[in-house]
Amino acid sequence: MRQFFLTAFLSCAAFTTHADPLPSWNSTETKSQIIDFVTAVTDPEGTDYVTPAERIAVFDNDGTLWAEQPVYFQFIFAMDRLAEMAADDPSILSSPTLEAAAKGDLATVLQGGHDALIEVVNASHSGMSVEDFQLDVANWLDSARHADTGLPYDQMTYQPMVELLRYLRDEGFKTYIVSGGGLHFMRVFAEEAYGIPPEQVLGTYGETTFDTDGATPVISKAPGIAFIDDKEGKPINIERTIGRRPILAGGNSDGDFAMMQWTTTGDGPRLGILVHHTDAEREWAYDRESPIGKLVDGLDKGPDMGWVIVDMANDWSRVYTGAN
Amino acid sequence: MRQFFLTAFLSCAAFTTHADPLPSWNSTETKSQIIDFVTAVTDPEGTDYVTPAERIAVFDNDGTLWAEQPVYFQFIFAMDRLAEMAADDPSILSSPTLEAAAKGDLATVLQGGHDALIEVVNASHSGMSVEDFQLDVANWLDSARHADTGLPYDQMTYQPMVELLRYLRDEGFKTYIVSGGGLHFMRVFAEEAYGIPPEQVLGTYGETTFDTDGATPVISKAPGIAFIDDKEGKPINIERTIGRRPILAGGNSDGDFAMMQWTTTGDGPRLGILVHHTDAEREWAYDRESPIGKLVDGLDKGPDMGWVIVDMANDWSRVYTGAN
Repeated sequence: MRQFFLTAFLSCAAFTTHADPLPSWNSTETKSQIIDFVTAVTDPEGTDYVTPAERIAVFDNDGTLWAEQPVYFQFIFAMDRLAEMAADDPSILSSPTLEAAAKGDLATVLQGGHDALIEVVNASHSGMSVEDFQLDVANWLDSARHADTGLPYDQMTYQPMVELLRYLRDEGFKTYIVSGGGLHFMRVFAEEAYGIPPEQVLGTYGETTFDTDGATPVISKAPGIAFIDDKEGKPINIERTIGRRPILAGGNSDGDFAMMQWTTTGDGPRLGILVHHTDAEREWAYDRESPIGKLVDGLDKGPDMGWVIVDMANDWSRVYTGAN
Repeated sequence: MRQFFLTAFLSCAAFTTHADPLPSWNSTETKSQIIDFVTAVTDPEGTDYVTPAERIAVFDNDGTLWAEQPVYFQFIFAMDRLAEMAADDPSILSSPTLEAAAKGDLATVLQGGHDALIEVVNASHSGMSVEDFQLDVANWLDSARHADTGLPYDQMTYQPMVELLRYLRDEGFKTYIVSGGGLHFMRVFAEEAYGIPPEQVLGTYGETTFDTDGATPVISKAPGIAFIDDKEGKPINIERTIGRRPILAGGNSDGDFAMMQWTTTGDGPRLGILVHHTDAEREWAYDRESPIGKLVDGLDKGPDMGWVIVDMANDWSRVYTGAN
């Protein structure tokens, strides 16, 4: 019992301190808008109060929680893996796109647009158990380094966003990833990098099979995309999987527009947070013309919808979790 | 602070009382096996300890958490709704199956097997927003009564299973429904009936659309089944949606076999609970020959796999939540 009271006392003490919950955010209007929103929806006496069960916050991953240049990191994994697979069996490189990908010739692959990306992911992500696939991803994350920063990819998460996720959870929110990235890929690092458990990761997924040949059944990744969690797929997936309309959504590209629109046009207090990549020095600066993370609709319509636009260069005192 | 200490003290007191967590279960071997399992996986000093995050429990709904005779209750809703829709527009009854369903002629519909059930559900569950659909379900649950028991359908939940769900949650488990029943249908009553929130309800779902015609977007139910959450679809959906292998699964029919096999063949302590409908007096007695809730594999292979077989007539002192 003494132990219990001590814990209770320490918890109380923690609640009464007022440390800055977002230390890597500069003291700008953006930071105030976020904190004001969270304060309003968690004040039981306020008119904007939202019960904890309804405090659902959804975030895109690529370009919102971690970097996405020069191409989605999952795609770099896919190219690395395809090169390995082709070393064993060159016949798998059955198209010019796959040949280019196995050589790491990103420029050629990107000319094929999203279809080419899907072809490469499809060829490199099937024909193995989910468990084996996730071990591969974990090994890759341990050894691979980003060509520009030299950082492990899972240290190119944005420290300000990691702080925001933690702050929201401390305030009773349930935080979800809702990303065009692969479900099985993201689950490998989401818990450690963001504190988001597997059941709160939504993403694009391929077909899977349930095989009972052995002593214990195995779930394996099969060819074919079953669901693309992008654009209107995001609110559709949220409705299917979560079954509640979020009150907060964060994104950075037009692929997030529908999710943010769905979130912020609901009744009651709502917040849309759009990360604008404005920092060519510490990260990258891109929006309307970028083949990755193209952002047009959000910039044109977001402000009128009351979305908070994060100016990365100005609003963040630190960018990556792994380095300043 | 005084309030806080008082709450802490009361919580402590609650933990030290030893009230029977399963009062509607008779004191049989079945009850002991369940309690022994829960005790083992929650004992931090024991070799079978499982962390709270991994305490995932999944349950089928029809025939496991509530009754399913003479046909799945969702199907009775579908027939009632189809009759209403046909009163406005008789042309929607475009097949003999739909005509029979609108007349409530269950025998004829059942001759068409699962395909006929899906045809009726499809015709009656699309062309409206998810929100409107769920209002319809809620209204139906308020007014409809089961022909044999006279009870509202959502009072034909099994009191012993409701107690089991609560007991598991009290012991740190996260409880999920994984059912062949419709996702949107079940979410209407799952929270009140079982304490299971929308994001922990997995089921069969149809296609949905994200429409942005109006001032606020709407998600609507469209024709076509997108995913059937039955047989091997259950472990596939669990892997996709939860991303963890459950340690406890409850079911009652061969549609649950794959989910229970997936759960109980994993490493470490696992429990399968198979509800056997043996109580012709208080409920129904059926298994191998029943068109609804057919149970062959579970009876043949479950005991060798260590599953607990619940003998409803013998193990439960009370059946329905709504009446004894």
